Order: sequence, then structure tokens, then C-alpha cells
Amino acid sequence: MDAVTVDTILMHVRESLERNDVPEAIRIIETLLPADQADVFEELEPEHQEILLPQLAVEDAADILEELDEADAANLAARIDEDSLAQIVAEMEPDEAADLLGDLDPILSTATLELLEEADDVRPLLLHQDRTAGGLMTSEYLAFPQAMRVSQVLSAIREWEPRGPETPRIFVVNGGRRLVGQVGLMRLIRAEPAQRLRELMDPDVLRVHTSDDQEAAAHLMSRYDLLVVPVVDDEERLVGVITVDDLVEVLEDEATEDIQRIGGTEPLDRPYLDSSVGAMARKRIWWLLLLFVTGTLTGSVMSLFQEELDRVVALSLFIPLLIGTGGNAGTQTTTTIIRALSVGDISLRDTLRVLWHEFRTALILGALLTVVAYIRAITWVDSPAVALVVSASIFAIVLWANGVGSVLPLLAARFKVDPALVSGPLMSTLVDATGLLIYFSVASLVLGL
Amino acid sequence: MDAVTVDTILMHVRESLERNDVPEAIRIIETLLPADQADVFEELEPEHQEILLPQLAVEDAADILEELDEADAANLAARIDEDSLAQIVAEMEPDEAADLLGDLDPILSTATLELLEEADDVRPLLLHQDRTAGGLMTSEYLAFPQAMRVSQVLSAIREWEPRGPETPRIFVVNGGRRLVGQVGLMRLIRAEPAQRLRELMDPDVLRVHTSDDQEAAAHLMSRYDLLVVPVVDDEERLVGVITVDDLVEVLEDEATEDIQRIGGTEPLDRPYLDSSVGAMARKRIWWLLLLFVTGTLTGSVMSLFQEELDRVVALSLFIPLLIGTGGNAGTQTTTTIIRALSVGDISLRDTLRVLWHEFRTALILGALLTVVAYIRAITWVDSPAVALVVSASIFAIVLWANGVGSVLPLLAARFKVDPALVSGPLMSTLVDATGLLIYFSVASLVLGL
Repeated sequence: MDAVTVDTILMHVRESLERNDVPEAIRIIETLLPADQADVFEELEPEHQEILLPQLAVEDAADILEELDEADAANLAARIDEDSLAQIVAEMEPDEAADLLGDLDPILSTATLELLEEADDVRPLLLHQDRTAGGLMTSEYLAFPQAMRVSQVLSAIREWEPRGPETPRIFVVNGGRRLVGQVGLMRLIRAEPAQRLRELMDPDVLRVHTSDDQEAAAHLMSRYDLLVVPVVDDEERLVGVITVDDLVEVLEDEATEDIQRIGGTEPLDRPYLDSSVGAMARKRIWWLLLLFVTGTLTGSVMSLFQEELDRVVALSLFIPLLIGTGGNAGTQTTTTIIRALSVGDISLRDTLRVLWHEFRTALILGALLTVVAYIRAITWVDSPAVALVVSASIFAIVLWANGVGSVLPLLAARFKVDPALVSGPLMSTLVDATGLLIYFSVASLVLGL
Repeated sequence: MDAVTVDTILMHVRESLERNDVPEAIRIIETLLPADQADVFEELEPEHQEILLPQLAVEDAADILEELDEADAANLAARIDEDSLAQIVAEMEPDEAADLLGDLDPILSTATLELLEEADDVRPLLLHQDRTAGGLMTSEYLAFPQAMRVSQVLSAIREWEPRGPETPRIFVVNGGRRLVGQVGLMRLIRAEPAQRLRELMDPDVLRVHTSDDQEAAAHLMSRYDLLVVPVVDDEERLVGVITVDDLVEVLEDEATEDIQRIGGTEPLDRPYLDSSVGAMARKRIWWLLLLFVTGTLTGSVMSLFQEELDRVVALSLFIPLLIGTGGNAGTQTTTTIIRALSVGDISLRDTLRVLWHEFRTALILGALLTVVAYIRAITWVDSPAVALVVSASIFAIVLWANGVGSVLPLLAARFKVDPALVSGPLMSTLVDATGLLIYFSVASLVLGL
């Protein structure tokens, strides 16, 4: 649904609420798909949200709490009565329910758990840390003992009504609930009713451990095209599964973090408009201050060469241009390398190939810019010597910037630091000061200053 | 599998090949998972690849061609004999097979299609453009007429052996193959054998059209958590489906494009090390030249104010610092906004809220930097007047940079231009020249120049 449609529907819902026609508002909301329901819902006034949520069909209310941004969902949940909340939470997917309960005040969270009939689905999920495979998993999956027959499994499946997405995969466990195999639902349908799971199952199952990083789980799923990956504890016992909708979310969050870091800001953790101005300023100020301090280096380099600048005033005109070009070339390289590392196109063992690749690219770019810079300089200051200094410097600066731009993110990866921290702004600031050093050295050499 | 494991296995494969023990090399490769097979395979010498591929189990060979980068797969396919190629292509998922045939020389592609038994699966897929839903879809899916009974559908499913991922969703069509509903596989298992699909199906099916942009299809799937989305032609006839593994790929490619554009380079279209040096230089040079030309503006602004600079030499020391800070603050804002637009956290109707958000953030950041800048300036040049000029300018420049940084990507989105084009480097370059204008204006005012 696009923004215009959301606005139109929102208008109708608001009109209904203004004339106190709550049933009409509910009717409109219940015709929508979950993601659209949440979009409309989050635009309503808090007092309207409180009135509407407990009156919606409980499945719709559950969908809305699942789709809302986590902090919004927790705020809303805290404002409705405990019985309604427990009923809604009972209809949520267990992993989403656990996330919500984890965000609530501990007293409210405990009270809701006590009112919850299927608390056993949710309780174990609360034990795992955010951003681990255990924190991402759900307890809704199909697992049967290896001695069970196909006919028994199929009748068990007939009784199963999951609240989340149905994934067509059955996990097979031994007596100690250890994961020993898997069978696809299609394979099961094709099998003879008397066959046992042991005979059908594929014993090779890729798995993750509860304490694994969620990004590791996501990369495993994306690399091997898995719709669902089982999560086991330290004794290899099956305790949950991660489904592909979570994979999509993790991948998007990860790209968002990379992009924000490349832009020189700490990741926001929350959607843009839900981040407070104070939080936004906090995420940005340290980078700005760091870059400010390193930026003063550029000025210091200029003071060092003040005498030369005074003697050939034209030199100063090209300073912004030279440091800008260095920063741009370095940023191009760094962002390309950061992303290639992120998606696994390159890894540390490719370091030499990457450097060789960037070196040759820099030769071409440097050569082209040298020509352009010479022409620009000679038409501007009419001094072949200055034009030579400017164009030779730009060649050296582009080579240098591409080198620094490729080495820094690889070094970061080598020391297990997020390569995205070597962001564009950091790169530009570093290359600014060093680029000026190159410029003044070339100038001293050529002009004999 | 991590880089070290790939290296070890690669070493074993190479050793086997060196002593001409092809069966051993094949044995090692066949123990691996498809993505790992491809990783090892792409490191082998071309002549070894040609020898190995036709001798591998045909399913493994098909997996390798599916997992290799598209250009590598096409190169390899062109070097093996046509009969082997046709056998391997027959085992590939139809959408991957169509992609490969589309990349081959038309003569080879036609010849392979003629040798292919199941060419009817693949041929229609060749008609659609890359980057559309039609170009992304596969022809492997389950669709049955609405009058069919559950028992009939289940026996039909028993006969079905897809080469790609099994998705647990059955589409329902009417006499004219128009899409009229869908049923989950679990629901089908739970139903009475004599029931007809018409009675079971959910008639509301989200769908995309063959000519829709692939990103639109991906956003639909990600927004509504779909494992598979049906693709229909202009007459609403079902012609294919897009599966979630393709969604993951589209989302990753899209984030990669955004990141590369933010870094000031055109998207590479291919994995980093597969992009030739010439291609890399071409993707970067236009941006560098554009930024070079706009960068000369900064120099021009300096020439305009040459007289003032000569009178108060200390002013020039702060130029790199001021334009750097403006560029950094603008880049922080722009990248945050670009990503928020990309993932749908904000849309055009939020423009005013975004501007208000950034304005307040800029007030905080500007105030803090003003204090730091005053202290730095006064300790450096020992002139309260210059320190006042520098700190007042930095306040104005941060406000200005955050404003420009938020308006530009929103304007781009308004005119249906990719907001990521308003990249960090472009932002820095624009803010450089305008920031200097602010600086010199403040200086004229305060110092009475």
C-alpha cells in the first residue's frame, strides 16, 4: 500500500472515530493486511489506539503489535488492561511475544506471563540475549522422534495450527531431543505411510547455536538458501528455529547499520522518526568531534607551510580542490570495499588482489584527473610551474587515497573491528591532511621553495 | 564455510588434479554444499573447470552453475560441449537456467534449448526483461484448477519433484488459468480428501505483474512476509512465482547499489573482484570529474575573497576545518535520510517532520561544536575576533549542511531520482563552496573587512 492509500484510509478511520463510530473504524482496519493495519494504527492518537486495540479481533490486534516498531508496541501494550494484553499476546508468534514481553516493565511482563495459557512457548525464549540466534528464534516448529511413522507424523501435523508462517520442514530428534535429521513436507507426503522418519530423513542438517551471533545465522541462511534453520543448545538439543522473515529483517538492519556508519554516524537502533533528537545528536556528535580534531591537522599542515603559501599565493587556491579530490577517491574505494566485505565478495585472503585491483584503477583515474587538473590550473593561474605542481600532486593524491581507502577497511576486518567504521568522513579527513603534505612536498620540489 | 576451510579444500582438490587424480577431486567437491562447491570451483584453473564440470554428478554441476557469478557461469558454459551443457541445464532451476541461457551467445543458447527436454519450462522465462518480476520468476510451482479435490491434488503433488526450493503454497486457477486463490500445504493436509480447492482456498492473493520492477516485488514480499509471490500476465493469468531466495538477493543488491552510490561511484553490477579495472574506473571517473569541477567553485569563492584573506591571514587556517565539518554534518544527515527512505521508515509525506527533526538535531550539534571551535581558535590564533568568526560560522554551517543534507535526498525522491545519487561526496562538495561563502560573510560582518 502506498503513502496516498494509507492517508486516505487513515482519514476515514479518523472521521469514524471523531463521530464516535468505533465499530466503523474497526471494520475499516480489519479489512487491511497486517503491515498496513500497523501503518494506519501508528498514526492514530494514543487515546484512540487504547480504545481500538482491545476491541479488534484478537488475531488482528496480535498482528498489529507484531508489526509496530518495538518501542511503540511496548508503549501501547503498557496502556491497555492486563487481561486484554494476555489474550492478544497469546495470539502472537512466540518469538514476537517474547520480544514484546522483554521490552515491557518486568512487573507487567511477569503478570502477563501468568495470565498466559501458552506461557511455556514463550518463557524459554526470554532467556536469550538480543542479537543472538537464541534471541531471534521461535518455538513454533515441527519436530518428531526418529522412530515415528509417516502416518503418525501426518496426523500430528493435522492437529498443528501455528500462529506464524508455516515452513515445510520437519525436524527429527532422538530420545534426548538431540537434532539428528530433517525431512521436507513434500517428501513426507510422497512417502509410504508405514515408513519411519529415520528412513526418510536427511541426516545432514545445518544448524546454529543459541549463543551464535544473529548475523552468523543470517549469513548461513542466505548462503545456503535456507527457509528455516534449527537452533540447538550446547548439548545439540533442538530448542527453536529461525524463519526466513527474520533473516530478511536481520539483513536489512545490517545494511542500515553499514550505511549509517559509512555516513559517519553511529547506528540509530530505531526507525528514523522514532529516534529522539537527543539520541540522534548523541549518535553523531562523537564522530563530528573526532573529525573536528583530526580536521585541525589540516590547518596545522597549512601553518607549517605558511611561508611557502605566502611566497606563491596561487597555491592556496587549489587546496580545497586537492583535498576534496583525495577525499572523494578514498571514499569511493572505502565504501566499495566495505560492501564487498559485507556481502562476502571478498575476504581477508584477497587483500593482495584488492590492493593490486585498486592500484591499477587509481593509475587510470589519476592519469585522467592529472590532465584535467593541468588544463584547469593553467587557465586559472597562467603559471606552468603551478599547473605542474597541481597536476602532479593530484596524481599522487589519488594513488595515495585509493591505497589508504583499501587498506583501512581490510585492516579493520583483520582486527575484528567493523570495517564500516572506516567511514567516508573519516577517510576524507585522514586524506585531507596527508594530501596537503603531498601537495606542499611536490611544490617545494618543483618550485624550489 | 569460512575462508580457511575453502583454502584447505581447494589445496586438496588442486593436489589431486596435479597428480591427475580427477576422481579424487570429484569426490572432494561432491561432499560440499552448493555454495561451497562454487567457491572452490571458481578458484580453479579454467582448464581444470572444463574437465571437471561434465564429470561431476549432473545435479552438482547444475548447482555450481547456479551458484557461480553470472558472467563466470556463462564463460564456463561456453567452454564445455553442448550435450553436457544441455544435460546440466536440464537439472537447473528454470529461472537460473533462463538467466544462464540469456547470458550465452544466441547461437549456443538456441542449440542448448533444442537439446533440452524440458525446454518448455525455460523458454517462456527468456521473454522477460532483467530486473522485472518476469525476469526474476521461475516456472516451478504448484497450480491446480479450483474444482480439483484434495485427494487428487495430493496425488499430483506426490508426482512432483522440483529442482528448486519447495514452497508450501498451492495456487488455484480457473478455466482460463486466471489466478483465483491459494491454499497452504498444511491446510491441504488437514482438509477432507473429498473437499474441492474452491472450498478451501483463500481468494485474496497478493500478486505482481510480469512487467513490475523487481524491487517492487521484493518490497511486497518483505512487507507482507511472503515466502512466495505469484506473477501474472496482463490478463491476470498465472505465469510464474518469485521465491524468497530471490527476494534476499534483490534486497542485498539494492543495499549494495545504495552503498556504492553513497560512496560516489556508480553501481558495479558485478562482484568486486570480477569487475575489471577498466569497468571500475569508468564507474568512478564521472563522479570524480563532476566533483572536481564543482570543487573548483570552492577555489573560486576563495579568489573572490582574496583581499580579505590577505588582510587577515589567520582566516585561511580554518578553511579546511570549516568546510570539512560542513561536509561531515551534511553527509551524516544525507546517508541517514537515504536509508530511511530506502527501507520505508520515512516517505515524502514526512518531509516537514524530517526537516524539523534535523533542524533541532543541528541546533544541538551546532551549539556543541561552536564551543569547541571557539576554544580551538582562541588557543591557536589568540584573536577573540577571529575565534568569534570561526565559531559563529561553524554554527551556521552545521545548520545549513543539515538542511541541505535532508532536503536534497527528499527532493530527489520527489522527482523520482534515486536519492542515493545525492551521495556523501556530492554533499561535501556542495557544502564546501557554500560553507566558505558563509564563513567570509560572517568574517566581513564581524571584522568589518
